[in-house]
Amino acid sequence: MPEIDTDAFLRDLHELRAIGRFRTGVHRPTYSPQDMESRRWLMRRLEACGLAPAIDGVGNVLGRHPGPGPHLLVGSHIESQNEAGWLDGALGVVAGIALARGGLPVDVAAFADEEGHFDIGFLGSRSAIGEVGEAEIDASRNRTDGTLLREALAQAGLAGLERMRLEEGRYRGFLEMHIEQGTRLEAAGQRLGIVTGIVAIWQWRIVIAGAQDHAGGTTMAERRDAGLTAVRLLAAIDEAFPRVCGERSTWTTGRITLDPGAPSIIPGRAEILFQVRDVAVPVLERMEATLRALIRESNRRERCTATLEEMSRNTPALCDPGLMGALSAAAEALCPGGWQAMPSGAGHDAQNVAKMMPAAMLFVPSIGGISHHWAEDTKEEDLVLGLRVLADAAERALA
Amino acid sequence: MPEIDTDAFLRDLHELRAIGRFRTGVHRPTYSPQDMESRRWLMRRLEACGLAPAIDGVGNVLGRHPGPGPHLLVGSHIESQNEAGWLDGALGVVAGIALARGGLPVDVAAFADEEGHFDIGFLGSRSAIGEVGEAEIDASRNRTDGTLLREALAQAGLAGLERMRLEEGRYRGFLEMHIEQGTRLEAAGQRLGIVTGIVAIWQWRIVIAGAQDHAGGTTMAERRDAGLTAVRLLAAIDEAFPRVCGERSTWTTGRITLDPGAPSIIPGRAEILFQVRDVAVPVLERMEATLRALIRESNRRERCTATLEEMSRNTPALCDPGLMGALSAAAEALCPGGWQAMPSGAGHDAQNVAKMMPAAMLFVPSIGGISHHWAEDTKEEDLVLGLRVLADAAERALA
Repeated sequence: MPEIDTDAFLRDLHELRAIGRFRTGVHRPTYSPQDMESRRWLMRRLEACGLAPAIDGVGNVLGRHPGPGPHLLVGSHIESQNEAGWLDGALGVVAGIALARGGLPVDVAAFADEEGHFDIGFLGSRSAIGEVGEAEIDASRNRTDGTLLREALAQAGLAGLERMRLEEGRYRGFLEMHIEQGTRLEAAGQRLGIVTGIVAIWQWRIVIAGAQDHAGGTTMAERRDAGLTAVRLLAAIDEAFPRVCGERSTWTTGRITLDPGAPSIIPGRAEILFQVRDVAVPVLERMEATLRALIRESNRRERCTATLEEMSRNTPALCDPGLMGALSAAAEALCPGGWQAMPSGAGHDAQNVAKMMPAAMLFVPSIGGISHHWAEDTKEEDLVLGLRVLADAAERALA
Repeated sequence: MPEIDTDAFLRDLHELRAIGRFRTGVHRPTYSPQDMESRRWLMRRLEACGLAPAIDGVGNVLGRHPGPGPHLLVGSHIESQNEAGWLDGALGVVAGIALARGGLPVDVAAFADEEGHFDIGFLGSRSAIGEVGEAEIDASRNRTDGTLLREALAQAGLAGLERMRLEEGRYRGFLEMHIEQGTRLEAAGQRLGIVTGIVAIWQWRIVIAGAQDHAGGTTMAERRDAGLTAVRLLAAIDEAFPRVCGERSTWTTGRITLDPGAPSIIPGRAEILFQVRDVAVPVLERMEATLRALIRESNRRERCTATLEEMSRNTPALCDPGLMGALSAAAEALCPGGWQAMPSGAGHDAQNVAKMMPAAMLFVPSIGGISHHWAEDTKEEDLVLGLRVLADAAERALA
């Protein structure tokens, strides 16, 4: 088993936590000054561990091991959701630093904008496997404030830099350590999760067209209230989906926007951000068919017309059996009976990297399952155990 | 009957329409540069008609007739909702100019922020009757961007000006001409509405507290989704209210805000702007009791807690029988059988002025009932007929 300095690992985590600190979490949206500071911090750390760091045209940071192979790629992302947790993403990158410091032949990657502040989705890892064209970058905007991605890149000092591609044939595989972002491990009293696959996310914008009108002058009978149609449609989804979903399916309405959004104006337009997740394509297809049927039914009944615009749709990713075997063996060696195999309900960069090389993920528990919130946390002993298992698994995979 | 220059009246309306033009409507939010330009335009017009114009510390514009009484007060407001119609408010003020130009002994008022861009509500007319204290102004903010009212007043050059009070005993009454903002006149094939009373508006903020979490890692069973509780509560209101409302009651959800509003985050907080309107207090009380019962029921069933915060609550205003008689007589003289008595579903400055003097309102039809939208419009012949009836009624009231 390699010599892993767990104190240095925890020190690194807390140093990174101080960049963009928000309460006990962090606020490091992609390409913000805090995010860029964290990328520069990462490059200094990678260099100190003997890797050759580089940043690319979308902010991907890669530290290359200078020695001969075989190599593993280890990493995740370091930007955060708004006012979110300190470990989401950061853990996988800092674990990579710790493995490199311990002398393992690993490259360490921090893929940009895993959190999807820009509407392109998984920009960094998709770019690194050659899936993102320049036109897609030209068209992309910040989901919150509408800033063009190109402008954000220029402001961050990244304009004109080349975009890196992961080198074919260089790696035995990719390992991503991450917090669970759920309560399954905690509820089962277990400390480690070996990820079997990563759910696909299918995402739509539901747009409802009504008639904007005065809330006093327009009788209830005359109204074409887009907000009310949205409420009825979402209530119908809430009733129908439990009957068609799979055991671990999720569906989420993240945003409802009524236009113009004033207290005395009947909304003339409503927009809903809606997504479903599952590891099984047939289940996803069943949920989509139900959604489309409910929208058709709504359009027959209501005076406002709902339309479905697809925002994104990816495929579930299955983890590599060899790497999963290495992780399981390491987990069983260091924490017998304290681990389980499980799917990942959240999307991760590993699902993209998996298109190019074997990939696997290791989960550590999230206290109370809290995630995408500044209160997110994991017990220190679980962080340390997870790192040790990752290092042991890396050594097994490289053997 | 007084000599009324209807061409000059239409010319004034179109000149005012050009200030802050948005498509065929206008965008003149309170204290915006466009709004202030329109107030300066109004003062020049008032002066040209022989009135003495003044602007006060909240932007109220009053043109005083220099001659002896008896006087009438005529007016409305000239700021607009965002990207809204050209006649809402403007019509009543420009009609006042036309009456003054015709030699009638009227003062003309444009009350500030009838549209409620600031959360104080009916700032101008409530200030003019002495209902607004300095502390209320200190605390008030723009509903859209949060700007402090004090800052907006300073930026508009109004800081330090005195606030005017309508002079006790000066007026026989107040007349406000306005577009209907509904389809009742159009549907009945009538050209004039004599308003019997103005609905009260009771307005609440419904706040729902859940738990912000990752949309992938948190199972459906574990979630405390504030947005979903909001949807279920609004669907319950949609079902229950038709059974407790009055014949002309309205209820409106103008805004739903899910926090943080990202596609992959379960909303930890939802905020709903909800209002009810009716002319009868017992009906309003019944709707409020139902709302409170539905919230209690929601809190028993759901894992997210809803609370009700009162935003505003006013009393219905009844129009003055004497002024209504003058309007009815004028309408019957100029358009026999072409008018009807009706309540106003929208709030108007007249409801505040009515606390100090007799008040009445005259409605002209809105094409298609469209209001608070740039496509709002009224036939030119209806605008002209309305003006003639207003002038005739003013003469009768002054006789």
